[in-house]
Amino acid sequence: MIAMVEAGRDLLRAAIRRRDPLSADRLLTMSEDLARSPPGFAPALAEQILSGYEAAPETERRAFLSGLAVRLAPDPVRLERAVAGFGRRPDPAALAELHAASEPRRQQLFRNLNLARDGTTRLVRLRTDLGRWRREIDDADTLDADLAHLLSSWFNAGFLRLERIDWSSPASLLRKIIAYEAVHEIGDWDELRRRLEPQDRRCYAFFHSGMPDEPLIFVEVALTTGTPRSIESLLSPVRRVCPPGQAQTAVFYSISNCQDGLRGIPFGSSLIKQVVELLRAELPSLRTFVTLSPMPGLRAWVESRADDPVLGAAARAVLDVDPPPADQLRRLAATYLLTAKSGAGQVLDPVGRFHLGNGACVHDIHPGADPSAKAQRQSFGAMVNYLYDLGALERNRARLDRDGAVAGARRVRAFARRGAL
Amino acid sequence: MIAMVEAGRDLLRAAIRRRDPLSADRLLTMSEDLARSPPGFAPALAEQILSGYEAAPETERRAFLSGLAVRLAPDPVRLERAVAGFGRRPDPAALAELHAASEPRRQQLFRNLNLARDGTTRLVRLRTDLGRWRREIDDADTLDADLAHLLSSWFNAGFLRLERIDWSSPASLLRKIIAYEAVHEIGDWDELRRRLEPQDRRCYAFFHSGMPDEPLIFVEVALTTGTPRSIESLLSPVRRVCPPGQAQTAVFYSISNCQDGLRGIPFGSSLIKQVVELLRAELPSLRTFVTLSPMPGLRAWVESRADDPVLGAAARAVLDVDPPPADQLRRLAATYLLTAKSGAGQVLDPVGRFHLGNGACVHDIHPGADPSAKAQRQSFGAMVNYLYDLGALERNRARLDRDGAVAGARRVRAFARRGAL
Amino acid sequence: MIAMVEAGRDLLRAAIRRRDPLSADRLLTMSEDLARSPPGFAPALAEQILSGYEAAPETERRAFLSGLAVRLAPDPVRLERAVAGFGRRPDPAALAELHAASEPRRQQLFRNLNLARDGTTRLVRLRTDLGRWRREIDDADTLDADLAHLLSSWFNAGFLRLERIDWSSPASLLRKIIAYEAVHEIGDWDELRRRLEPQDRRCYAFFHSGMPDEPLIFVEVALTTGTPRSIESLLSPVRRVCPPGQAQTAVFYSISNCQDGLRGIPFGSSLIKQVVELLRAELPSLRTFVTLSPMPGLRAWVESRADDPVLGAAARAVLDVDPPPADQLRRLAATYLLTAKSGAGQVLDPVGRFHLGNGACVHDIHPGADPSAKAQRQSFGAMVNYLYDLGALERNRARLDRDGAVAGARRVRAFARRGAL
Amino acid sequence: MIAMVEAGRDLLRAAIRRRDPLSADRLLTMSEDLARSPPGFAPALAEQILSGYEAAPETERRAFLSGLAVRLAPDPVRLERAVAGFGRRPDPAALAELHAASEPRRQQLFRNLNLARDGTTRLVRLRTDLGRWRREIDDADTLDADLAHLLSSWFNAGFLRLERIDWSSPASLLRKIIAYEAVHEIGDWDELRRRLEPQDRRCYAFFHSGMPDEPLIFVEVALTTGTPRSIESLLSPVRRVCPPGQAQTAVFYSISNCQDGLRGIPFGSSLIKQVVELLRAELPSLRTFVTLSPMPGLRAWVESRADDPVLGAAARAVLDVDPPPADQLRRLAATYLLTAKSGAGQVLDPVGRFHLGNGACVHDIHPGADPSAKAQRQSFGAMVNYLYDLGALERNRARLDRDGAVAGARRVRAFARRGAL
Repeated sequence: MIAMVEAGRDLLRAAIRRRDPLSADRLLTMSEDLARSPPGFAPALAEQILSGYEAAPETERRAFLSGLAVRLAPDPVRLERAVAGFGRRPDPAALAELHAASEPRRQQLFRNLNLARDGTTRLVRLRTDLGRWRREIDDADTLDADLAHLLSSWFNAGFLRLERIDWSSPASLLRKIIAYEAVHEIGDWDELRRRLEPQDRRCYAFFHSGMPDEPLIFVEVALTTGTPRSIESLLSPVRRVCPPGQAQTAVFYSISNCQDGLRGIPFGSSLIKQVVELLRAELPSLRTFVTLSPMPGLRAWVESRADDPVLGAAARAVLDVDPPPADQLRRLAATYLLTAKSGAGQVLDPVGRFHLGNGACVHDIHPGADPSAKAQRQSFGAMVNYLYDLGALERNRARLDRDGAVAGARRVRAFARRGAL
Repeated sequence: MIAMVEAGRDLLRAAIRRRDPLSADRLLTMSEDLARSPPGFAPALAEQILSGYEAAPETERRAFLSGLAVRLAPDPVRLERAVAGFGRRPDPAALAELHAASEPRRQQLFRNLNLARDGTTRLVRLRTDLGRWRREIDDADTLDADLAHLLSSWFNAGFLRLERIDWSSPASLLRKIIAYEAVHEIGDWDELRRRLEPQDRRCYAFFHSGMPDEPLIFVEVALTTGTPRSIESLLSPVRRVCPPGQAQTAVFYSISNCQDGLRGIPFGSSLIKQVVELLRAELPSLRTFVTLSPMPGLRAWVESRADDPVLGAAARAVLDVDPPPADQLRRLAATYLLTAKSGAGQVLDPVGRFHLGNGACVHDIHPGADPSAKAQRQSFGAMVNYLYDLGALERNRARLDRDGAVAGARRVRAFARRGAL
Repeated sequence: MIAMVEAGRDLLRAAIRRRDPLSADRLLTMSEDLARSPPGFAPALAEQILSGYEAAPETERRAFLSGLAVRLAPDPVRLERAVAGFGRRPDPAALAELHAASEPRRQQLFRNLNLARDGTTRLVRLRTDLGRWRREIDDADTLDADLAHLLSSWFNAGFLRLERIDWSSPASLLRKIIAYEAVHEIGDWDELRRRLEPQDRRCYAFFHSGMPDEPLIFVEVALTTGTPRSIESLLSPVRRVCPPGQAQTAVFYSISNCQDGLRGIPFGSSLIKQVVELLRAELPSLRTFVTLSPMPGLRAWVESRADDPVLGAAARAVLDVDPPPADQLRRLAATYLLTAKSGAGQVLDPVGRFHLGNGACVHDIHPGADPSAKAQRQSFGAMVNYLYDLGALERNRARLDRDGAVAGARRVRAFARRGAL
Repeated sequence: MIAMVEAGRDLLRAAIRRRDPLSADRLLTMSEDLARSPPGFAPALAEQILSGYEAAPETERRAFLSGLAVRLAPDPVRLERAVAGFGRRPDPAALAELHAASEPRRQQLFRNLNLARDGTTRLVRLRTDLGRWRREIDDADTLDADLAHLLSSWFNAGFLRLERIDWSSPASLLRKIIAYEAVHEIGDWDELRRRLEPQDRRCYAFFHSGMPDEPLIFVEVALTTGTPRSIESLLSPVRRVCPPGQAQTAVFYSISNCQDGLRGIPFGSSLIKQVVELLRAELPSLRTFVTLSPMPGLRAWVESRADDPVLGAAARAVLDVDPPPADQLRRLAATYLLTAKSGAGQVLDPVGRFHLGNGACVHDIHPGADPSAKAQRQSFGAMVNYLYDLGALERNRARLDRDGAVAGARRVRAFARRGAL
């Protein structure tokens, strides 16, 4: 039988040499092999599987991903034995065996695939595929959770390297910044330069040693004297540059995740905290750390309130009049941020969920702060400042966790109260 | 109750400020907190726990490690529910929940501790402590396996960076090389220089981004024309330097693991393979990759054979005569390497286990190759060459796995046969 | 008197503190001071002079440059004595004194100005000013020659660092490449990327440690299979990329000096030779090193031949017909390159002077090779290949030096002969 | 004749290929060739000359150096014409020509030799040879002055790079620090580590891009609370480490020039000033910058005063009694430093000449500060603090230049006055 296996291997290698596309079935057989191989042992096989997957047509790639759920599940015999053993005698050893036996064998596959050239980057890309084809793949959620678990371990915040990105960064990297900017589009290299070169601008990104050329997430910062009330005041090409030594406020005006394959892996909180620490050390004159953020879910929520007995009138006014009345808009936005929750009890607005989950509070609301079509569509052009008050972060987050209470400045709470009238 | 918790926290912080040593119980309470905290959220708490642990007296540190097994075990309620759920309906979701629920909460603790400054290095040091106190700690093996699992994931070979160490490396690093060298002691800086500076010498180490100043494992290489028969021929201060372009053989004459806290995490195989690839690319004249290795377990095994009906006479001759008769010593060493197994069926000699497990074969045996007292004590001064034949590694390893058959050169098998007579 | 000087200094410092512009006269007085100061001693004074110069209005700056010739000339007393001494007894010591006494004191001024922050860059910029205002400044040529002498010593080819510029180079540097490209304009970042990122493109520049952020000169290289006959074949966005391992020809298609203040300092020859060495080592398949170059002086020369008894007919045909007849154009271009000389006996074409002076030969001529308006204007759209045959460079240069004989391929000499009929 | 020259060249190349040693005459002929070659043109010839020189036996090397004076002197015809021209009409152009014509042709030779691999380092080594053989070489002083002139230009302080040397510096560099330390010998690597690793120790060196692996000069600094009174208080292995943030004094306790071939090129003043600037920026608590320096010439001077009517008694007491009476020793040392001058009017003590020339003042004198045999021999074990008071440096230096007046603290002047009684 060994001979047959080896004959099969020879055929396989010949196919690879001829660069025939490999079928999903072949790739899965190779993957079973690799999952059995000791750690660090088979970089060539890892390379073949990833190359084979990447060269395969889409149908085969989807079939491969579907097959992983079935063919690289835990060993059923070992699992059954571990469950039974734990049932008889739930001691630490039995528990450890239960945990080990219930680990899908694809975890070991993924760990071994990491040995291929640029393995980490390619595994992240494989999870991007998985996201795209989620509906067409069997047990996609399980597989996705497996990969997320592994990537969370690898991309532990302790391994992320904070780097400043500036106008002397490699052009190849800056091109990615242009492409990945998700909040306020960067039109061309001149606009990028205006966000990086002036001495009152900063940009920081997280990198990981396994993906050295790829930013994971980045934040753009403006140093100002006061809290900004509009995006134009930050991005205008003709604004006055603030000497960094005189800056009192650091404004986080854009945060973009770069890797779809790392969705759900939480970097953002660490990024902001580390940037705050770094800026405080560099510029002791800084007093306030604040965002200028969009409210992507505001319009949808306002629309859902159109028939609300309390808020309906305000909602209709804001929806019908252009520009919407600022007072009503402020009231609705404050109510939305402070009270609107998802079914799972989380803050409804996705950007708010991130900042409030970090312990920030709703600091101020600015109608007419962003004239872009996107902002009009999402939030009637309004924006919000979230305040990062280092002394209050932990308390705010604890209250949100415990009671679901969103922290808001007195002024914002007043907006909402008037909104509730 | 919250107030009390907060009051407790204030006391705790005051204690930390005063630098009172923290009790194991305090550290465990803080650890439970940290294990609950979202990833990346609580670097300050991580720092406090690790600093507290490091400053605590040994009894408290041991109590803390013992306590981890009990107080950061899996949540029993969730675990029971998961086992029951999987029993009712063993679908992928139930399996995933079973795996998640059986994960000890200390895994999340360790992941979050990594956020402290130099977190990875300090966790590795914590595992060093665990090794030292293994006998005095409850459930030490479970805890050790947990840490090993996590560190295996973090120190995946795909994340290790191969670096050459030479005479222009930082003195602070070279001092560690002197300290960590485990095979052939480096007496002083001049001796180190002789192993690094000549153009026929190489040294390579693995590094990890989480422990940037610490080598994990390193190998020392000599470039020669033929296979070396003694360690003196490699280390003598008066040898002739071999121009690298004329070298036909690369000799791996010393491999040292540097971090006790990473014991059992397998780097060595990747290291040797990567060094072989790198040397082949740099020096196309190289034909042979071979070790010159000690046989640490030979004497103990020979002693155990003293009454063996077949090998007894040879064993006694080798044990009694000084220097031992070369022929008998070769026979015994060959038999030992090719056949001696541990209770678990593994190759008995620890160095042999490593190289043969990598797919190398026993290439030659040299009595009188190492005059040092240590070598006399371990192996009567004999050494062995293991050959890394790239075309045969996979086959050799497969046979060893499957049949327990150790690969040996014809000559070595002949030594052993004569030994069996 | 000292007191007065010191009082003067205090006034001066006060003026600097108030950022009053300094007059040329003040700057010259300070410069006399600095020229007397021991080497390395007075960085602050150097900084004041350069800042003062840079902040001064143009008239004062010109007056300062004019004043340098007079006020920082050699010490006349010492010079007279040295000339007399050498006349009496022309021994090595007298000669050394003659050389030292005839050195303008501004040399020491310039050496001491180099201590200011970015001193070298600012001195180079000062020479840029000198070039611009050459006609309005007294003895500008002497001053220019002084600076050129000093800069030649500092920018000795042994101190230049060859660096590859690619798509991962800093954006701030790449922006300068776009700005400095003098031969084939780079329209935007996408075009730049097409010249840097494909694997069959190279760009190399010289840098100097005194101007770390400024390229001095750069060359763009295309790797191809054969000798290119048109610039479009190199720059077209849709061309086929040549795998570097298969390239047989390296084409130097653009060489640009970056610093006007370093005009006349000869880097180009070293640059090309070093790039040739580097490419040969990296890509052993390369056989041919050739340029594709403009002929900036061709049209003017053709116009001057319109009434030439021998060449007149061809010249008029080329001048009158559009597109010009290829055969006639080839003949005229070949004759121009092989025979046209300046009054000083140098090769007339400035680009040709550079390459032929390096020992290259005229390899081929291509009518219609460059459709740009500039090329039409300069050379009727024709381009020339200069061949760098390493075995012939020295011989070619020696013949050119000795006899004024320009090296040309047999084919090119044939073009010219036909042109002479 | 050309053919003969070329035939000669072929012979020459054959000799180089056979690695026959080249005669001084051959080397001089090649050097004449190279001096004529355009800048940057002939790196291969430069390499041959330097390799030939380095491989030649000592007699030939000395003959080569002697020959440079004669065979690479200025062109006599051009020189005569330039002198005459300047005599007729001393205008700027004639002056420029006089300066150019009086430049020895070996200057161009040296500039072109710099193109060889490691050219700068090898030229510096050639000047080391010149220093060693000065007595045996014709016109050695002229040649030495030529090289010094060129190296002064190249090693302009504006091109020197200040780098901190610490325990993570390359071992190959640290080994040079051990070798080059000229003031307080570094016994072994442990002693070196004690001077580099503690947080209250600093070491800084100048480097030049043309000799990247060679320190030019370095200074060792101790951070302390008060001014040190003995070298033991700084170098003792058991001293208490001073937290840098609490340091009020930076002590320059050892300054060593590393390159004999750069003797006379003044780096030291720049080094100290730059280190002072850097430390002030890094550690705002620093108030005092002071040396603890030897007095190498004290004993010889005291011996010369033994019959002095005023100082004789004190001198004899100090010379005869062991340990010498502290008061007398202080008086003599203060008088020596404040008043003793060389024939040329310079400060007599060589270390004093350096620091006082930088504008420092004599701050205090400590008998018994250095128990080493060397210090006993040179200065009866006494040491001196020179104070770098940034506000007074310029004034002190100006007074020394103008009046020969050495700046001394009131206390030191009092010591000397008592000495004069």
